[in-house]
Amino acid sequence: MHWTVYLSGEIHSDWREQLEAGVKELNLPVSFTSAVTNHEASDAAGDLLMENENAFWRDHQSSKVNAIRTKSLIEMCDIAVVRFGDKYKQWNAAFDAGQLAALGKPYITLHDEKIIHPLKEVDGAAMAWAKTPAQVVEILKYVTTA
Amino acid sequence: MHWTVYLSGEIHSDWREQLEAGVKELNLPVSFTSAVTNHEASDAAGDLLMENENAFWRDHQSSKVNAIRTKSLIEMCDIAVVRFGDKYKQWNAAFDAGQLAALGKPYITLHDEKIIHPLKEVDGAAMAWAKTPAQVVEILKYVTTA
Amino acid sequence: MHWTVYLSGEIHSDWREQLEAGVKELNLPVSFTSAVTNHEASDAAGDLLMENENAFWRDHQSSKVNAIRTKSLIEMCDIAVVRFGDKYKQWNAAFDAGQLAALGKPYITLHDEKIIHPLKEVDGAAMAWAKTPAQVVEILKYVTTA
Amino acid sequence: MHWTVYLSGEIHSDWREQLEAGVKELNLPVSFTSAVTNHEASDAAGDLLMENENAFWRDHQSSKVNAIRTKSLIEMCDIAVVRFGDKYKQWNAAFDAGQLAALGKPYITLHDEKIIHPLKEVDGAAMAWAKTPAQVVEILKYVTTA
Amino acid sequence: MHWTVYLSGEIHSDWREQLEAGVKELNLPVSFTSAVTNHEASDAAGDLLMENENAFWRDHQSSKVNAIRTKSLIEMCDIAVVRFGDKYKQWNAAFDAGQLAALGKPYITLHDEKIIHPLKEVDGAAMAWAKTPAQVVEILKYVTTA
Amino acid sequence: MHWTVYLSGEIHSDWREQLEAGVKELNLPVSFTSAVTNHEASDAAGDLLMENENAFWRDHQSSKVNAIRTKSLIEMCDIAVVRFGDKYKQWNAAFDAGQLAALGKPYITLHDEKIIHPLKEVDGAAMAWAKTPAQVVEILKYVTTA
Amino acid sequence: MHWTVYLSGEIHSDWREQLEAGVKELNLPVSFTSAVTNHEASDAAGDLLMENENAFWRDHQSSKVNAIRTKSLIEMCDIAVVRFGDKYKQWNAAFDAGQLAALGKPYITLHDEKIIHPLKEVDGAAMAWAKTPAQVVEILKYVTTA
Amino acid sequence: MHWTVYLSGEIHSDWREQLEAGVKELNLPVSFTSAVTNHEASDAAGDLLMENENAFWRDHQSSKVNAIRTKSLIEMCDIAVVRFGDKYKQWNAAFDAGQLAALGKPYITLHDEKIIHPLKEVDGAAMAWAKTPAQVVEILKYVTTA
Repeated sequence: MHWTVYLSGEIHSDWREQLEAGVKELNLPVSFTSAVTNHEASDAAGDLLMENENAFWRDHQSSKVNAIRTKSLIEMCDIAVVRFGDKYKQWNAAFDAGQLAALGKPYITLHDEKIIHPLKEVDGAAMAWAKTPAQVVEILKYVTTA
Repeated sequence: MHWTVYLSGEIHSDWREQLEAGVKELNLPVSFTSAVTNHEASDAAGDLLMENENAFWRDHQSSKVNAIRTKSLIEMCDIAVVRFGDKYKQWNAAFDAGQLAALGKPYITLHDEKIIHPLKEVDGAAMAWAKTPAQVVEILKYVTTA
Repeated sequence: MHWTVYLSGEIHSDWREQLEAGVKELNLPVSFTSAVTNHEASDAAGDLLMENENAFWRDHQSSKVNAIRTKSLIEMCDIAVVRFGDKYKQWNAAFDAGQLAALGKPYITLHDEKIIHPLKEVDGAAMAWAKTPAQVVEILKYVTTA
Repeated sequence: MHWTVYLSGEIHSDWREQLEAGVKELNLPVSFTSAVTNHEASDAAGDLLMENENAFWRDHQSSKVNAIRTKSLIEMCDIAVVRFGDKYKQWNAAFDAGQLAALGKPYITLHDEKIIHPLKEVDGAAMAWAKTPAQVVEILKYVTTA
Repeated sequence: MHWTVYLSGEIHSDWREQLEAGVKELNLPVSFTSAVTNHEASDAAGDLLMENENAFWRDHQSSKVNAIRTKSLIEMCDIAVVRFGDKYKQWNAAFDAGQLAALGKPYITLHDEKIIHPLKEVDGAAMAWAKTPAQVVEILKYVTTA
Repeated sequence: MHWTVYLSGEIHSDWREQLEAGVKELNLPVSFTSAVTNHEASDAAGDLLMENENAFWRDHQSSKVNAIRTKSLIEMCDIAVVRFGDKYKQWNAAFDAGQLAALGKPYITLHDEKIIHPLKEVDGAAMAWAKTPAQVVEILKYVTTA
Repeated sequence: MHWTVYLSGEIHSDWREQLEAGVKELNLPVSFTSAVTNHEASDAAGDLLMENENAFWRDHQSSKVNAIRTKSLIEMCDIAVVRFGDKYKQWNAAFDAGQLAALGKPYITLHDEKIIHPLKEVDGAAMAWAKTPAQVVEILKYVTTA
Repeated sequence: MHWTVYLSGEIHSDWREQLEAGVKELNLPVSFTSAVTNHEASDAAGDLLMENENAFWRDHQSSKVNAIRTKSLIEMCDIAVVRFGDKYKQWNAAFDAGQLAALGKPYITLHDEKIIHPLKEVDGAAMAWAKTPAQVVEILKYVTTA
């Protein structure tokens, strides 16, 4: 049995790399998928289609191009990890979590203790809350190898 | 045809009251539903079940009690309005939007121009972006009366 | 048992009125729903939200506001009638038919013999092809009264 | 991750070949599927079952045989491209788009600026509007490789 | 709680009337629905649309008109009773049973002991096998009143 | 908004009556549904169809008749309460909980502290764990009135 | 693209073998699945679990064991062929067709002209009616190779 | 065709090993999946995330980590075997059976004659009841090889 794990959220720290290294070291039957994590590329995803002076429509156009990828990967994943850092609004991560919850996909949240309270609805529908990437690797090890 | 409209998000301004007044004045065939909007009551929703010293579990317990209501109302609604104010993390609103998107429920976002960019994924899956409650009332009028 | 029948397509002839008159005369247990059928109002549905110089985004904005209504009514209907006239592209009618087919909603097409061939895919998934509103009324009578 | 992309619509220009060439050059992890694109073969798809003098039933019979293929491929695809040319009614393309929308499959429309208005409902539910096959190839590159 | 019970199958005996009388006498919270049970009317259901010399297409056209009613009623019912008599092929009844099974609708079969063996697949997915209408009434009484 | 609450489990104590009394006193917008709670009647539910010497088939026949009621009520409910007492195997209650979980229906468990450990999977998918009927009434009050 | 085709119905003629030979000769990307087609083995499928004097329960037990296979294969198939011969009740074939219809699986019926009328509901939901295995092979060739 | 079979329930006898040996000997196209069957490991599954003095939350945390695995495997399986031994509450097995039933996954129960009565609801929705692992192997042989 091979497991596909979607990684959602923060793009300004190396948590994805830590998960990948940890899973590789343990040789777990796990593949990771992700949104495009290059911020500038992501913001410009739709620019080739039409130039827009209006900021809303530029964002709208790029957001929908990105969603071709993210919506598909969310629907294809077996498990997800949703990471919240200590900066920015990160509404896209909470939005992903809402989709995962409605689709019945089990997800693990990864965040500091400081933001427990504003994340209580997102954590309430999660299957686990981890504070470190190492904990996530441990959970994936437990879940994917018997 | 009667329409049920779920109101999600900000609880510190009177946008819900403005929508209700607007809809009442026009006599639209619309009923509104909402999460419990009393902040303290919502945080304490599960306290009667078990006292918890641990902040995470207290929030977890209350979050799940609240979700009995919100998850049901989200699934029962025909349309939703998701409001983002200028304060707080408001991850619960983005989480609701994610559920609405995955369930195929049409929703309208209601927020200032200043936060277009961090909301681009949430707006990307929305059917309309409004800046004022009055605009939402206009949309509801158009949509629910032919 | 009461039946809700969604009427999709042509807005430049009086086929909707003929159906309503026919159903009323026979006192059938049928209610009709429809998109907004005022062409100008429909094109301007989103204008109150934001003015757009760009023709694509103006149409996009209005199209999504209209879809709040049409997508909901399509999902709520028991039966649909999809009408194709002899003018215009009418891609919205074929688009509605595709949604109806994918949702498993039984629909009746209403069109002249001249356009059988270009409509063959739409007719192939339909439950009946009628040439006149009177025939549709007859079908509704048969289907809704035993 | 390999992606299956369904190509719907116009059969009288070489847009499919352009997409295939573009994707091959970039070595993208993409496979294309399509309806039978030979017009005569498609019209005659059911003729072997029964000869029909009646034009409606001949079309009906062939349409359903074709739908065995197209309905399956639509349900199996990850992404779709729906192409509208400048000739013919092309109701089958709009019908495909409606099915894609109702199934929650992300699709890209490919058409000239001249037909924005009649396609506004089809574009409203699309994730992107492209004017050239080269743009579609760019989007597929962005979406399928991170 | 009110229950809608779909009655499928044999139209040449009075089992429907027996059920209705039994349910009325006990004043059960049950409404019955049915296909059109007039054989000639049912065979001619589509004749008003187009005359067909070809027997297959005449049947096809009527069958689809009838299915507007039956497919809807099957999807709307809470429980079904599927009756097999001792004559005719009655493939429509077995076809209804297959739809009910796939939709997860609980159904009761009503037939003589003589045809247990050929009905074993239909009975295997049923919730009960009754030999008489009186038994069905008893089951409905038990199920709908506590 | 009216809420339907399915009551599953123990039939040898008066917890159902306590819930009904509590909800009545507070005049909550709640209706309760339940399996048949008369043990002998439930065991004999299918006996009228066929006498069975074999204990397995007698139970099988009655179990399926009961499931016509319980499966329907589970699918129709908005919320459920699943009660485990201190006696008997009560596998039917855990079986109901599994169905509720898979259908995404929010449920509250009601049981003593002594059986936390064997119920950990059932509680893990529940939205709340209550120790007394009075707590359940409080939760229902909170959830159904804003 | 590889296609899985479920073969349902008649077990007393060699139509399955003809389909297999035809598909093999053309080297089509098609695999066939089927219920167990040995009549005696099928009737005895559950006998190892428990001996039953009662004919109904013996059939019931075997029918359910067979359904583990058939229900799974029906849900896994891309296309089905449902064959009706000139003998026996063949309610299992009509039952399979009903499941296929409700699941939205495209199926082809295979039967003589003599039984058009009793099969009109089964044919009405089919995508094609073939009179010979050779015609089915032609359809499969057309559908699975472009 | 390869079949994935989920094994649920009792962890204190060697029934899983017997099934594996039997299937291996017959070289059946079957793979087995299971929850983590080490009792202590399972109870401690979430301990690495947070230490909990409160017994309920410790169980809750571990139960949800285990559910990441079990809920996924249940949804991925083609068939399940649910085993009830003669000790312990085993509510998790009945809970799994409820999920399987609601998802329409065919399952076989494996238990002694002594516990027929308390398991009647779980058996009522099962496709077969086996008393020995050898019988299960026979059923799997029959179902997976034609």
